[in-house]
Amino acid sequence: MPGRVSREGDGGAGAPVSVSGLGSGPEFDRIRRFLAGARGGGPAVRVGPGDDCAVVTGAGIALSADMSVEGVHFRRDWLAPEEIGWRATSAALSDLAAVAARPVGVLCSLAVSDADAGEMAERVMVGVREAAEAAGGALLGGDLTRSPGPLVLDVTVVGESAAPVLRTGARPGHELWVTGELGAPGFAVAALLAGRQPEPAVRDRFARPVPRLAEALWLVERAPLGALIDLSDGLGGDAGHVATASGVALELERAAIPIHPAVLTGAATREEALAHAMSGGEDYELCLTAPGGALEPLRAAFEREHGVRLTRVGRVAEGSGLFWMDGGTRAPLGAGGYQHFRGDP
Amino acid sequence: MPGRVSREGDGGAGAPVSVSGLGSGPEFDRIRRFLAGARGGGPAVRVGPGDDCAVVTGAGIALSADMSVEGVHFRRDWLAPEEIGWRATSAALSDLAAVAARPVGVLCSLAVSDADAGEMAERVMVGVREAAEAAGGALLGGDLTRSPGPLVLDVTVVGESAAPVLRTGARPGHELWVTGELGAPGFAVAALLAGRQPEPAVRDRFARPVPRLAEALWLVERAPLGALIDLSDGLGGDAGHVATASGVALELERAAIPIHPAVLTGAATREEALAHAMSGGEDYELCLTAPGGALEPLRAAFEREHGVRLTRVGRVAEGSGLFWMDGGTRAPLGAGGYQHFRGDP
Repeated sequence: MPGRVSREGDGGAGAPVSVSGLGSGPEFDRIRRFLAGARGGGPAVRVGPGDDCAVVTGAGIALSADMSVEGVHFRRDWLAPEEIGWRATSAALSDLAAVAARPVGVLCSLAVSDADAGEMAERVMVGVREAAEAAGGALLGGDLTRSPGPLVLDVTVVGESAAPVLRTGARPGHELWVTGELGAPGFAVAALLAGRQPEPAVRDRFARPVPRLAEALWLVERAPLGALIDLSDGLGGDAGHVATASGVALELERAAIPIHPAVLTGAATREEALAHAMSGGEDYELCLTAPGGALEPLRAAFEREHGVRLTRVGRVAEGSGLFWMDGGTRAPLGAGGYQHFRGDP
Repeated sequence: MPGRVSREGDGGAGAPVSVSGLGSGPEFDRIRRFLAGARGGGPAVRVGPGDDCAVVTGAGIALSADMSVEGVHFRRDWLAPEEIGWRATSAALSDLAAVAARPVGVLCSLAVSDADAGEMAERVMVGVREAAEAAGGALLGGDLTRSPGPLVLDVTVVGESAAPVLRTGARPGHELWVTGELGAPGFAVAALLAGRQPEPAVRDRFARPVPRLAEALWLVERAPLGALIDLSDGLGGDAGHVATASGVALELERAAIPIHPAVLTGAATREEALAHAMSGGEDYELCLTAPGGALEPLRAAFEREHGVRLTRVGRVAEGSGLFWMDGGTRAPLGAGGYQHFRGDP
């Protein structure tokens, strides 16, 4: 009910969602129900859901938050409620992969309309819990509130890393690598916007992304990584973040970018496919740098172990900005990437 | 723009807000601006804002999330933008006080309309940062996204506690205590809803609440606390949480409840004042149990040190539920408290 503020307070579900520590009422019953299936988490979880805070331990605790808004980040006619929860949680967990942290758990806050406070909220939270558990983490807590507006999820991820790999470590002479094949999620959204159903493999990359957590941990245990980031904005945008944070230039080989085969097949031109790979976003693959020659000897074992490609796409050079290397010529790539407020004055 | 999903991806500001690690664009410039004034945090902050995750350390890391929605939890005609940020952050920080954790920092995710993406978002975040810093914590990260709906803030608080005090520790024979004087925030909201401006001291308790973090740490260092909780739902609701979580009954002395003097003065009857104190909510005071006689010897020093009252309001008994003790008679108190979805079928 817009414009009306309850006089009873705002902290009703402000504590982590709770099995034992809540009073009575339909909201609390619902939360109890979806938490009943949640596992308690690994040894790093000292206090799980059920009190004012969850408590976790670890040498270094990595934290990141990612907010998704209906009509901006997802549409309910495109995704099942469980997929909405899974996708928002996987997107947030990808930030743990981006520093090579091991997931401990997630907190999820959910704002829903009165009409969505029942089955819809529960099914979204089932997707959140499934994504957290698939990544080896637990549902640690969160909040549930009504809203007169669109469904909003905010997922805070909690991971453990004694030695996080940051965006700042790219050095001239490093090679630039990416995992996986790019462009399918952006291609799926383009199809959906045009009123077409994307083919299952492409839709799946959009609706059920899997963050590269095991892949990041595997790599950091075996190679002296420089910089690491996940591809949420598209390679163009995220490589730009690495270049800026590390104070270097990145030279990308136009012909080396690993484009998802369904995008190559489905796009009208190779240029259109490349655009999806560079700026479609939501790939949740990894982009990393390592000293020259460090990763090539590991490539076959990585691809066998994870069933995911590992591709050298360029190099780190002195300077700043992004460049295309194309048949020996070098040209500025432009900012690329994605901004929420592009229409902002 | 409702119903339209951008094809460019959803991770644009999904990483923690960043000074060094972001690309160009008006959104990023704005985030840089408000973070420019943020302190880096204490020794527990190993990696602050600026990468995919913040990284913190500590013996036990306490985590909680609290979501606030415009029109449900606050109205912009009642609060300045900085107060909206301060209030949401203090409400979340109160959950750290509720386990006696020391604040390390906060992550704040913000969903705003295009019209609010400028000055409004920045001023809200200034309030968030001020509340975090006033509590001894840092702004660790967050997310910023546009939304076609109301302004939504989700604040995740991060604290350190080697020995968190939970809701589960109330035992028969314990005394029940509360800090401060109750009812002023609910009384302020009642006045605002009636179109009246509350008097400054009452409005301040609503608009700029101060979580009892130092008070909780002071008490836990000096007394063998049983259960601890913060008063967000009103004493009736939160005492109910303690009773349920600990598996005990709580007997509250009707005459002992510390009602805020302005509420006693302003309310039509003492019963109305008591109702504000019991179920008005948003007091962000502490409610705790301790063995009989443990706290009375500390009371004067506590009140002198913190300028906050400490009042014995009842006792813990065998059984379950809440009871009024009133001139020697005992009567069930009822559930009380607050639920977001009270209109839910």
